[in-house]
Amino acid sequence: MRTHYPVVIVGAGPAGLLLSHLLHLQGIESIVLESRSREAVESTIRAGVLEQGTMDILNETGVGERMRREGAVHHGVELAFGGQRHRIALTELTGRAITVYAQHEVIKDLIAAREAAQGEILFDVSDVSVHDIDSTQPSVQFTVGGQTRRLTCDFIAGCDGFHGVCRPAMPASVRKEYQRVYPFGWFGVLVEAPPSSDELIYAAHERGFALISTRSPTVQRMYFQCDPNERAEEWSDARIWEELHARTESDDGWRLTEGPIFQKNVVAMRSFVATPMQYGRLFLAGDAAHIVPPTGAKGMNLAVADVWRLARALDDFFHRDSETGLQGYSEAALKRIWRAEHFSYWMTRMLHRIDDATPFEQQMQRSELEYVVSSRAASLMLAENYVGLPLA
Amino acid sequence: MRTHYPVVIVGAGPAGLLLSHLLHLQGIESIVLESRSREAVESTIRAGVLEQGTMDILNETGVGERMRREGAVHHGVELAFGGQRHRIALTELTGRAITVYAQHEVIKDLIAAREAAQGEILFDVSDVSVHDIDSTQPSVQFTVGGQTRRLTCDFIAGCDGFHGVCRPAMPASVRKEYQRVYPFGWFGVLVEAPPSSDELIYAAHERGFALISTRSPTVQRMYFQCDPNERAEEWSDARIWEELHARTESDDGWRLTEGPIFQKNVVAMRSFVATPMQYGRLFLAGDAAHIVPPTGAKGMNLAVADVWRLARALDDFFHRDSETGLQGYSEAALKRIWRAEHFSYWMTRMLHRIDDATPFEQQMQRSELEYVVSSRAASLMLAENYVGLPLA
Repeated sequence: MRTHYPVVIVGAGPAGLLLSHLLHLQGIESIVLESRSREAVESTIRAGVLEQGTMDILNETGVGERMRREGAVHHGVELAFGGQRHRIALTELTGRAITVYAQHEVIKDLIAAREAAQGEILFDVSDVSVHDIDSTQPSVQFTVGGQTRRLTCDFIAGCDGFHGVCRPAMPASVRKEYQRVYPFGWFGVLVEAPPSSDELIYAAHERGFALISTRSPTVQRMYFQCDPNERAEEWSDARIWEELHARTESDDGWRLTEGPIFQKNVVAMRSFVATPMQYGRLFLAGDAAHIVPPTGAKGMNLAVADVWRLARALDDFFHRDSETGLQGYSEAALKRIWRAEHFSYWMTRMLHRIDDATPFEQQMQRSELEYVVSSRAASLMLAENYVGLPLA
Repeated sequence: MRTHYPVVIVGAGPAGLLLSHLLHLQGIESIVLESRSREAVESTIRAGVLEQGTMDILNETGVGERMRREGAVHHGVELAFGGQRHRIALTELTGRAITVYAQHEVIKDLIAAREAAQGEILFDVSDVSVHDIDSTQPSVQFTVGGQTRRLTCDFIAGCDGFHGVCRPAMPASVRKEYQRVYPFGWFGVLVEAPPSSDELIYAAHERGFALISTRSPTVQRMYFQCDPNERAEEWSDARIWEELHARTESDDGWRLTEGPIFQKNVVAMRSFVATPMQYGRLFLAGDAAHIVPPTGAKGMNLAVADVWRLARALDDFFHRDSETGLQGYSEAALKRIWRAEHFSYWMTRMLHRIDDATPFEQQMQRSELEYVVSSRAASLMLAENYVGLPLA
């Protein structure tokens, strides 16, 4: 059994798996360690909107086949408020599009690709810890199948999410964290029904925000703003439908299509950035370094952008003897991250009911919404961020 | 002495004077009542940036001659932060421009035009009160030269500013007010010096906002964010220059040009909107109905847009027997007002130091600034609001 890898990747989410895939294509070996089971990883329902740049990376690296077949390319989104629906014509405005394709489907595709290439992914590992990250030979220790193992490596990629062990392994003295916890959450449901709308609907309503999204021709994803401590199991289906209908009903007579609700959950909302994203030989990517509220659909896309950049930097290190990319990784990645953080924060504040807003602030919120749907410049601003700014 | 006028205008600021001028051109007589002296009205230093639409109205109605000669047309403004100056190319982006020409100069030009046309303006009136505004023959009572007079009219135009008597004359039960008082003010100085820059500089700095504006080739207007209760007279010139230099210094070596400071004052910052802007035969315009913080340079321009709309509505009433314009005045005017309120609020929040901002919020502010100067869509959004959206 090998005890040294060029790169040990902690976490088999989209960031870790895609990094492992990209490194493989560059001829750099890695191993992925994941604390959850494969089944859990492949079935946990998370994000579902892929930016153009994310689609491009998956296609260009040979893992986009099922996404192209099963994902739905969308050329616009709708903002609904005041009884009216307003289309933001993403593709007309930007030349780019989005694909609605669930994160766990991307994960399945990446795991399949790693398997086909004999890539190593260890699921169900526990007690992961990282060591000697400020040396040129760091190591990762973990337990799997009741046995404790230690792997040395040249680099550790911390792709283990917000609650992972990698970020806290960086000395607190070099880290700075930025955070906002929102006083609301999203109540999410999965519904067996045909799509109610051809495009996603972001609804701003006095009762709070709602989002009508889709998963497939037969399964729909819907959310509505709720108390972050709401207990999903206490909500009857009737009460959920009442809330969704009230927040999305449109003067033109359009109504949501109901269906059996087969999953309910409450998602908390947080903005978070940890800087820097590198210390010694440990590099963070994805949720391990930053969280966005889901309103801008940026979470998975940021993870993809991070590892795309990190893979290039590692390629430069291993094949061109250059550390420039690695040294610049944190700063370059953070540029895109702060942009996405601001966009997500802006979308969240514009679309949600803010309970402590003054009447003046409520008017500002409404005024901004009206501007976004009536000014081409403002629509383009939303659109170019939503489809994703180019990877630089 | 006449005792009835079609329109009695309360207030000889830009709103009242321009309304009187526009009505005259339409053959509708009016009288303007002003509590201050002519000298005070013509010398009080206020705003200084005219939108393209304001320039057009002054030019088209024959009062733009001196503005064209003495005002400075600007095709861009600069945003300065992080030691860098970034130009927003207003004209390149929008096809429109602004003119830097002081409000009291506009006022002088309007008074001269009214005089030339034998228009009636009474200065130094006191104890103004409005009556019977819900009848078809309202009246205005006031004292001038020790004598109390009462004029009846068809309409009263309340152009008497934020502290005027007209807005409170509308029944409280029909009014709704929206307000934000900012926890900072602007410390303004007039300086005898040549311009430091060809274009206005809006500077965002850790120490607070600063604005470098101009009055003429020999007089410059500069502001910096301060405590709203700051006492201007307690600031030495040296301390003022230190503050202005620190907030505007640029990595490229650019520095402010100093000169004798001959006026200091502190301006409070407020956002305010009163709705509706009409009750019975009383119509509000300008600061009587709404206040913006000066950051977006919208105050005088909104007043001009209001009375442009009101003059057209009165023309429809007197000459086309139609009340449609008057009935729609408040709603139509408020559309533009809420847009300008949001723009001013947005500019203010983006550019000022916010003392209670969290580190995350500070990053959001910086991120938004960087986006505004790097995205064409976001630059255009600032530019189209700054030069003024078209009058509809």
